[in-house]
Amino acid sequence: MNIRFTKMHALGNNYIYVNQIEENIPEEFMKPLAIAVSNVQTGIGSDGLILICDSNHAAIRMRVFNSDGSEAKNCGNGLRCVARYAYEKGLVQNTSFTIETLGGIVTAHVQVLGDTVNSISIDMGEPRLRKGEIPMLDSGSAEDLATHSVIELEGQVYSFTGVSMGNPHAVFFVEDVKSAPVDTLGPQIEKHPMFPEGTNVEFVSPVSNNELDFRVWERGSGITYACGTGACAAVVAAILHGKFEKGKAVTVHLLGGDLEILWGQDDHVWMTGPAEYICHGEYAFEK
Amino acid sequence: MNIRFTKMHALGNNYIYVNQIEENIPEEFMKPLAIAVSNVQTGIGSDGLILICDSNHAAIRMRVFNSDGSEAKNCGNGLRCVARYAYEKGLVQNTSFTIETLGGIVTAHVQVLGDTVNSISIDMGEPRLRKGEIPMLDSGSAEDLATHSVIELEGQVYSFTGVSMGNPHAVFFVEDVKSAPVDTLGPQIEKHPMFPEGTNVEFVSPVSNNELDFRVWERGSGITYACGTGACAAVVAAILHGKFEKGKAVTVHLLGGDLEILWGQDDHVWMTGPAEYICHGEYAFEK
Repeated sequence: MNIRFTKMHALGNNYIYVNQIEENIPEEFMKPLAIAVSNVQTGIGSDGLILICDSNHAAIRMRVFNSDGSEAKNCGNGLRCVARYAYEKGLVQNTSFTIETLGGIVTAHVQVLGDTVNSISIDMGEPRLRKGEIPMLDSGSAEDLATHSVIELEGQVYSFTGVSMGNPHAVFFVEDVKSAPVDTLGPQIEKHPMFPEGTNVEFVSPVSNNELDFRVWERGSGITYACGTGACAAVVAAILHGKFEKGKAVTVHLLGGDLEILWGQDDHVWMTGPAEYICHGEYAFEK
Repeated sequence: MNIRFTKMHALGNNYIYVNQIEENIPEEFMKPLAIAVSNVQTGIGSDGLILICDSNHAAIRMRVFNSDGSEAKNCGNGLRCVARYAYEKGLVQNTSFTIETLGGIVTAHVQVLGDTVNSISIDMGEPRLRKGEIPMLDSGSAEDLATHSVIELEGQVYSFTGVSMGNPHAVFFVEDVKSAPVDTLGPQIEKHPMFPEGTNVEFVSPVSNNELDFRVWERGSGITYACGTGACAAVVAAILHGKFEKGKAVTVHLLGGDLEILWGQDDHVWMTGPAEYICHGEYAFEK
């Protein structure tokens, strides 16, 4: 079975994209196909497989399969690639449109220069700021804001801000992200009993009045090139601490490149960034 | 610049193959292209880039670029893929033909069933068996055969057979390759002063009168799925020790799959195995 595909990446987060409206891959092949294409030795090599499908509830639908074949709820970097693909291939006609995911429906906006999508903005929804919403368990109440939280590690107390962007984040302000203890404290914080579902851990440092340096320890993945929800959480935390203004865009410098984050007056967080084509072709799938 | 490519693998050893006769990639782009396509995050993902070129000395010419952009002398797994590609794309008309490499000219033979290449045999040349040819330095003379060599590691003495297939190999017979100390003794032997150019290290075990279990520690790479020259060296060593007959094919079970090795009466070693297509397409190369 030959399957037409496009490989794209967004800040290094790379997937094999398949136009399911044309390819019609049977449901039972999706898991083995995701595992097969992701394998760099005997497949193409990727973080997983993303299917672009018809939707009854939105303009299009995105289904994300990880490299182990499991289906993910959402993927911020994947959404940008899907939005660019959908617009440039004519699957949608407007520059603003909705995308259905397992985690809900999101709005995408593509910035078009000539006939090329230059950048893609995704409405990442409203942050949740209460301890019970992260979720976080400490001596305070579930109704308390998590903006001024503390955690004790190896006998030392660290201040942080808890933010949920649908998934949990613990944001730590540091002097210099390059020397931040990402790979030593990151895993300890991720699995600390204070976070019953674990947490993503961000070490961030404002470097101008609209720029933030950023390093992340991703829950379940460790150090990664880019974490879209983490960049959103970091900017929300920085605004809550008076380091930036609400309603003004902040450029976040991640290991894999830059994202622009805007926390609007309507409380919605918009993430803007690139999506790049790598190659397209036909993959010979043997079941 | 859009470049048409085919990704293929041979026992998991995977490269991006480009028909240079049609694509005409300028010399100065080869190194950056190899680095770019090999990167799984922002490129396709592979062990490197192989160009299939015209030759003045053979039917075709293969150029191998590693994922760091350096040019390799040869690649046994790559030769099988190039042979299949060249025959099926009509770059050669005969089932036996020559391939020029930086390491010399080799003969390939494709077995064709219907219009499909089922397996590919490569003449890997004659083994070199003298200590000076491996090269190996011990208390013996450079003219001595390396068939009954010993090495002392952590106070214990191990017997092995030294074989050169153009590159050095140290072959150790063990009871069971699954429990062989590949990742502990492998690196110590690779860099032992007895081997001035380092060595590949094979742990092998005959499991029938024509089958050999095989694990390898590759010089510079560590544990790999498949090492074609290692499989050849292992069968030569086993025949020298009376475990198999010269002139009869032996199936070598590697981590990535099987290779059939024949050490002929004319002293040439033939390696026979598969080569598989993964995908073909167009890669958007930005210089």
